[in-house]
Amino acid sequence: MGQKLRAAVLGATGLAGQQFLVALARHPWFEVTRLLASERSAGKSYRQALAVGAGGHGLAWFAGGAPPAELLELKVGDAAQLSPDGPDGVDIVFSALESDAAKTIEPRLAASVPVFSTASAYRNEPDVPILLPGINPEHAQLIAAQRQRRGWRGFIAPGPNCTVTGLAICLQPIARDFGLRGVVMTSLQSVSGAGRSASGGVLALDILDNIIPYIPNEEEKVERELCKILGSYVGATGQERIEPAAVGVSCTCTRVAVQEGHTEAVFCATEKPASIEAVRASLEQCGSQLSALELPTMPKRLIEVSDDPYRPQPRLDRDAGNGLTTVVGRLRPERVLGAHGVKFVLLSHNTKMGAAAGSVLTAEFLFKTGLFG
Amino acid sequence: MGQKLRAAVLGATGLAGQQFLVALARHPWFEVTRLLASERSAGKSYRQALAVGAGGHGLAWFAGGAPPAELLELKVGDAAQLSPDGPDGVDIVFSALESDAAKTIEPRLAASVPVFSTASAYRNEPDVPILLPGINPEHAQLIAAQRQRRGWRGFIAPGPNCTVTGLAICLQPIARDFGLRGVVMTSLQSVSGAGRSASGGVLALDILDNIIPYIPNEEEKVERELCKILGSYVGATGQERIEPAAVGVSCTCTRVAVQEGHTEAVFCATEKPASIEAVRASLEQCGSQLSALELPTMPKRLIEVSDDPYRPQPRLDRDAGNGLTTVVGRLRPERVLGAHGVKFVLLSHNTKMGAAAGSVLTAEFLFKTGLFG
Amino acid sequence: MGQKLRAAVLGATGLAGQQFLVALARHPWFEVTRLLASERSAGKSYRQALAVGAGGHGLAWFAGGAPPAELLELKVGDAAQLSPDGPDGVDIVFSALESDAAKTIEPRLAASVPVFSTASAYRNEPDVPILLPGINPEHAQLIAAQRQRRGWRGFIAPGPNCTVTGLAICLQPIARDFGLRGVVMTSLQSVSGAGRSASGGVLALDILDNIIPYIPNEEEKVERELCKILGSYVGATGQERIEPAAVGVSCTCTRVAVQEGHTEAVFCATEKPASIEAVRASLEQCGSQLSALELPTMPKRLIEVSDDPYRPQPRLDRDAGNGLTTVVGRLRPERVLGAHGVKFVLLSHNTKMGAAAGSVLTAEFLFKTGLFG
Amino acid sequence: MGQKLRAAVLGATGLAGQQFLVALARHPWFEVTRLLASERSAGKSYRQALAVGAGGHGLAWFAGGAPPAELLELKVGDAAQLSPDGPDGVDIVFSALESDAAKTIEPRLAASVPVFSTASAYRNEPDVPILLPGINPEHAQLIAAQRQRRGWRGFIAPGPNCTVTGLAICLQPIARDFGLRGVVMTSLQSVSGAGRSASGGVLALDILDNIIPYIPNEEEKVERELCKILGSYVGATGQERIEPAAVGVSCTCTRVAVQEGHTEAVFCATEKPASIEAVRASLEQCGSQLSALELPTMPKRLIEVSDDPYRPQPRLDRDAGNGLTTVVGRLRPERVLGAHGVKFVLLSHNTKMGAAAGSVLTAEFLFKTGLFG
Repeated sequence: MGQKLRAAVLGATGLAGQQFLVALARHPWFEVTRLLASERSAGKSYRQALAVGAGGHGLAWFAGGAPPAELLELKVGDAAQLSPDGPDGVDIVFSALESDAAKTIEPRLAASVPVFSTASAYRNEPDVPILLPGINPEHAQLIAAQRQRRGWRGFIAPGPNCTVTGLAICLQPIARDFGLRGVVMTSLQSVSGAGRSASGGVLALDILDNIIPYIPNEEEKVERELCKILGSYVGATGQERIEPAAVGVSCTCTRVAVQEGHTEAVFCATEKPASIEAVRASLEQCGSQLSALELPTMPKRLIEVSDDPYRPQPRLDRDAGNGLTTVVGRLRPERVLGAHGVKFVLLSHNTKMGAAAGSVLTAEFLFKTGLFG
Repeated sequence: MGQKLRAAVLGATGLAGQQFLVALARHPWFEVTRLLASERSAGKSYRQALAVGAGGHGLAWFAGGAPPAELLELKVGDAAQLSPDGPDGVDIVFSALESDAAKTIEPRLAASVPVFSTASAYRNEPDVPILLPGINPEHAQLIAAQRQRRGWRGFIAPGPNCTVTGLAICLQPIARDFGLRGVVMTSLQSVSGAGRSASGGVLALDILDNIIPYIPNEEEKVERELCKILGSYVGATGQERIEPAAVGVSCTCTRVAVQEGHTEAVFCATEKPASIEAVRASLEQCGSQLSALELPTMPKRLIEVSDDPYRPQPRLDRDAGNGLTTVVGRLRPERVLGAHGVKFVLLSHNTKMGAAAGSVLTAEFLFKTGLFG
Repeated sequence: MGQKLRAAVLGATGLAGQQFLVALARHPWFEVTRLLASERSAGKSYRQALAVGAGGHGLAWFAGGAPPAELLELKVGDAAQLSPDGPDGVDIVFSALESDAAKTIEPRLAASVPVFSTASAYRNEPDVPILLPGINPEHAQLIAAQRQRRGWRGFIAPGPNCTVTGLAICLQPIARDFGLRGVVMTSLQSVSGAGRSASGGVLALDILDNIIPYIPNEEEKVERELCKILGSYVGATGQERIEPAAVGVSCTCTRVAVQEGHTEAVFCATEKPASIEAVRASLEQCGSQLSALELPTMPKRLIEVSDDPYRPQPRLDRDAGNGLTTVVGRLRPERVLGAHGVKFVLLSHNTKMGAAAGSVLTAEFLFKTGLFG
Repeated sequence: MGQKLRAAVLGATGLAGQQFLVALARHPWFEVTRLLASERSAGKSYRQALAVGAGGHGLAWFAGGAPPAELLELKVGDAAQLSPDGPDGVDIVFSALESDAAKTIEPRLAASVPVFSTASAYRNEPDVPILLPGINPEHAQLIAAQRQRRGWRGFIAPGPNCTVTGLAICLQPIARDFGLRGVVMTSLQSVSGAGRSASGGVLALDILDNIIPYIPNEEEKVERELCKILGSYVGATGQERIEPAAVGVSCTCTRVAVQEGHTEAVFCATEKPASIEAVRASLEQCGSQLSALELPTMPKRLIEVSDDPYRPQPRLDRDAGNGLTTVVGRLRPERVLGAHGVKFVLLSHNTKMGAAAGSVLTAEFLFKTGLFG
C-alpha cells in the first residue's frame, strides 16, 4: 500500500492509550501522528506529560519496554478542545478515553473520521456494533446506518469489555455450529483490568493472598455485550440494528492476584450434540476466513486448544499470538446445564486482545474490507 | 464430664496432623495422649521429630503459633507397627495419614476404637458415611452396620474432601427446602489444600502471578462425595447404605495464589421457586439444631450470609467461626441453569472446617449423640 | 483505677484511625468517647461514615474483624472545626491524621490535652521527643519544656516512622551496652505501610512479582529519627532538647509483596567487642524495666530473639506479642562495617507497634509515670 | 564461520538444562547435538522424557515458550554412563547437573572437551577460574594450568553462583577504578533461584505474603566467589592460581515472592573518592572492550544505570539485554561504611545471566579468544 493513514490516539498518557501506541508501533498501515489527552497534559511534549505522571521520577510508562522514541517530542493536544470539525490531518482515531469523556469527545471526532474505541460509552447504542474480527463481520453493516442516521463521515466502533472478548470469540463458533442455549461462566480476572486510576486500581492490600468476588457492573456487561455480539444483524431499511441472541447467560466475575490475562471457566448448553472433537475443530477453525485478508496483526489462530489439562495458565499462555490468541483448555462434555454441551477454561489477554490491540485488529479488518470509504 | 477420652493422632508430624493437635489443644472432652507417625519419626520425641523435618533449623511446625508444649517430649510411635489389637490406652483416633497408608492402618485401629480421618481412603465404601455435623446426621446410622459387617468395636468416619465441605454445607439446606436439580461450580482453591509434600505442594514458581486450572481427581471427588453427603440413608437390614442424591453436578477446580480458604462460585437449579430471602433464611438456619448439643468447638453459625457484595474474601473471612463457619455472599437468583434457583459465592477454610477441625467437630457430635458406645 | 480517661480519635475513618480503635477496644484506662474525621464524614454516624467509604457496599473497615459495635452510632465530628479550646469532655487524643492536617489540628488540641500521634508533622521540632517506651524514657522530660514554651496544658507526642520503630528498639540496647558507631540497613517493607489513600496506596500491578526499590523520603526519616531516638536529653533550662546520637546511618528502603510487617537486614559496627551471646542478652532484656509498670498492652518482651535461621518471617512472626514485639533472627558477627559488631534481621509490625498500638503503649507509659499532669 | 561446534547438554530435562537449550537455540557457533540426563530419562526421546516429568500431562517444559522442535525426537543419553573417553562427536559440553552429579561426571567429559557448567562443584578448586566475560578475562589463563595439571584436553569452566553474578559485574569496575575496601549487601532473591526440585523448590505456602530471611550456604558462596572473581591471576609456573581479593564482604540473603531476578542492595567503601558521575561512567563502560569480539549473545551493555529512583524493578528490568544486562539504580554516595564509597541497587536475571545464558556467553568468549585450542 502507499501512504499510511494518519492516526490520532486519545487518552495517550493513560495505560490503555499507551497500549495503543505499542500496538501501533511500526504498523504498516497506520502511523501515529497526533496524541491527545486531558487538559493536564495538553501543551506538553509526550515526554513531559509522561514525566509529570511519574512525579518527576522517570516516565510514567506502563506498557512494557520503553515509549516509542519517535513520539516522545510530539506535542500532546487537549482532547476536550477539539474543534467540531475534528482533528485536521488525521485519518483514523484510536480512543482510550474513560467512558465519561468518551461520551462527549468521540462523537465530535466520528463526525469526520472513524473512531476505534476501548470505551464502553457507545456499546449499547442501537446503531453501534461491537465488532470482533472473525466473529461477527456481518455486524459491520450497521456502520453505514450509523453514519447515515447521525450524519457522520466517520463512525464509532467500540470493542467489547475485556471479559467478554475471549468469551464471545469462543462461543461464536459453538453457537454457529451447535446452537447455544445457555452459558454459565465464572471469571478469574487480572488486576490490570482495573487499570491504574486512583478510583479503580486494585490495591495490593486488597488482593495479595486474596480474591475479590465482585467487580461492579461487570456481570451485566458480560451478559449484555455477549448477546449483542452473538446476535443477528437486521437490515430492514431504517430499522437496521442487532437483534441480541436469545442465550441465557449467568456469570460471577472475580478478581485474583494475576497481573495480566483473564481466565474464565465456561459451561455451555448446546442445542445439538456437541462432541469434544467437533467443538475442538470448530474452535480451531475460528477466524480462518480472515487469513486471506492478510491483516498485519492477525495472529496465526484466534483460538488455540490445548490438550494439557494444566493449561491455559495466565503466565504461560497470555502472550500466545502476541496476546491476540484466546487459549482454550480442559474441554470436556457438559451434561448438567443441558442435554448437550461442553465446558472448558479460556484465557484471554485483557489488555491486548481485550483492549487496544483488539481494537487495532478491528480497524485493520474494516479498512481492508473497504468500510472506511 | 468426667475423664477425658484419650486420643491418638496418626500422621502427627505432617501438616494435617499438626492441625489436629491445634484443634484438640485444651479440648474439654478429648486429650491427646499418643502420637503416631511414619517409621522415620518413630522412637523420637515429638520435638526431635519436628526438628528432623526442619533439617535441624528450628521445628518443622506449620500450623500457626508454636507446637503444644505438653506434647513436645511425647515419644512418637510407628503408625505402621501397631498391633492388631490397636493402641493400648487409647479411646479415640484422629488420622491425618496419606490415603495409601490410611488404607492399611486405619482398619487395624477401627477394630477397637473410633477413627476420625481426613484421608479419602474409605469415603467410597458402601458402609462408610461421610459425615458433616448438622448436615447429614441420619447417615450416622450407617456406622452400626459398618461395625457389624466388619466385626469392629470401633469404626471409620472420614470427613469429606476440603472442596466438598463448604459446598455440601450450603447445598444441604437448599436441597432440603427447595429441591436441588443441578449444580455448576467453579472453585478457586488455596495452595494449602495441596499440602507440603514433595509431590503435592504447589511451587511458588507455578502459582505467583498465575492460576492452575486443574487439580487431579478433584472434580470427580466433588461430584461423588457431594451426592453421597446429600443422599438418603437406606436402612433395610443387611442392605444399609447411602443412596446418592440424583443431583447433576458439574465443576471446574482451579488453584490460585491464596494461602488458605477455598472460594467457590456456585450456580444451583432448584425444583421449587427459591427467593433470595427464603434461601438466606434456610442457609442461616443451617446447623441450628446442633446448638442444644453444646459441642465444644461448634461455631455460632455453620453458615454466615453477607450482604456486602465484596465478600466473602479469603483473607478477611476464612477465620469466621474459628475457621468452622462457611461464609456465603453474592446471593442472587439463577435462571440459566433452570427455571428456579440461586447463585452465590462461598468461602470455606480448607485446613480447618475442611480438614482436622471439621473432623473433631464430627467426633464431638458422634460422642454427644451416643454413637461411641 | 477509677474512671477511665475519655479519648478522642482523630482521623477515625482512615486505616490508621481504625487501628487506634482496635488498639483501644476494651482498654482498661482509656475509653473512646469521641470520633473526629474530615469534613466528608462530619455529622454522620460512624457507621454511616464507614458506609460512605465503601461506596454503599458494607463498611469500609480495614483493621480486621468488625468495627467496635459500641462506636457505630457515635456521631463523627469535624476535626478541622474544633474550637481553639479543644474538645470538650476529652482527656486524651489519639491522632491518625495525615501530616498536613496534623500540622494545623494537633496543636489546637495539644493546647488543652495530650495528643499521641502517628503523624510525622512534629517529629522534627526541637521541643518534641519521639518516644518509644522502654527505649528512651528520659526523653519524656522534654515534654515539660514543650508545654512551657508553647503555653500548652497538653502536649504532642508523636511515635516514630514505622520503619524506624523496630530498628530503634533493637539498636538502643546495642548502643547502650556496646557503643554504636554505624549502621547499614536494607528494609523490605510491607504494602500496608503505604496505606490505602489514592495517592499513596501500592497498586497490585506495581508489586505482584516485583520489588519497588524506593520509598520517597523514607531513608531520610530513618536516618534522622533514629539518631534522635538514640540521642541524649539535654536538660539545661531554656535549652532543653535532644542531642542526636552521632551514629552513621545508611539505608536503602524497598517495598515488597508482603501485607504487614517490615523486615530489615541490619549491619552494625560497635565501639566495643560485641559477642553474639552478649548482644542476645542485651536484646532480650530490652524493656524489662517496664514490667513493674504493668502497662495494659505491654507485651511479654519488646524483643524476641530466634535461633531458627529461617526466622523472622513476616507471616509467621508479625503478630508476636500481639504485634508489639520486635522479632530478631540471624544474629551473626559483623566485621566489614567495623572491627566489632553484629548483623541481624528484624521484623516489626508496621501497623501495630509501628503505628497506633505503639502510640497507645506510649500513652500508657506517660500516664503511669505521671506525665499527664 | 564454517561448521558449528557440536554441543552436548547435561541435565537437559531439568530447569537449568532447558535454559541452556533456550540460550543455544539458533546459536550461530554452537549446535546442540546431544542431550544427556539422569538414568530416569536415558533411552527415551527428549519428548518422552519431558512427558514423563509432566506425569503424562503435556511436557514438563519450564523455560518459556515451547521446547526446541528439532530436539524433541533426539534420544537422551545417560550422563552417568559416559565412557571415560567422553562423548563421541561432541566438541563442547554445557552442564546443568546438580553439584553432586557434576562432581563425578564433569571431569570425565573435561578430559576430552571444554565443559561450561552452572554447577558449584568445581568453583573452589585452585586451578579452576570462575569466569565472567568482560570482568576477569585474565583468569582464563588458569585454564592452561588446569589442563596441564589434570592431563585434560578439555577443561571445566563454571560460572558463579547466581547471586554473585550481578554483584561481581558491578563491583569489578568499581574495584579497578576506585579500589574496593568493603561491601555490605542484602539480597532479595527470586524463587526461581531455588529451582523446581522436590528438596529445593520454594513452596507457595512459604513465600506468599512472606519473606524467608535465609538461604543455606548462599552467603558463604557470595563472600568466597566474589573475592575469587575480583582476585588476581598469579602466573608463576607450577603455582598458577587466583589470589582472592582482600575485600571485606558481609551479606544477608533473603528470598521474596518474585519469579525471576535477584535484587541486591549494595553498600561499598572505596579506597579513593568515588563521585556518582565517575562511578556511573565506570559502570556504563563495563564490558565495552568485548564489543570488538562480536560475541553472538553479548548484550549492548553489561550494565545499564537508571536515573529513575523507582528502578530497577524485577518485573520491568530483568529482561534488559535479553536477561544478560545487569540494571543498576539508586546510585548514591556511601559514607557510613567508609570515608569514600557508593551505594546502589542492582538487578540481575538469575536464570539467564546468572545461569545458562551467562555460561554460553563465557563459552563464546573463550572460543573467540582462542582458548579452545
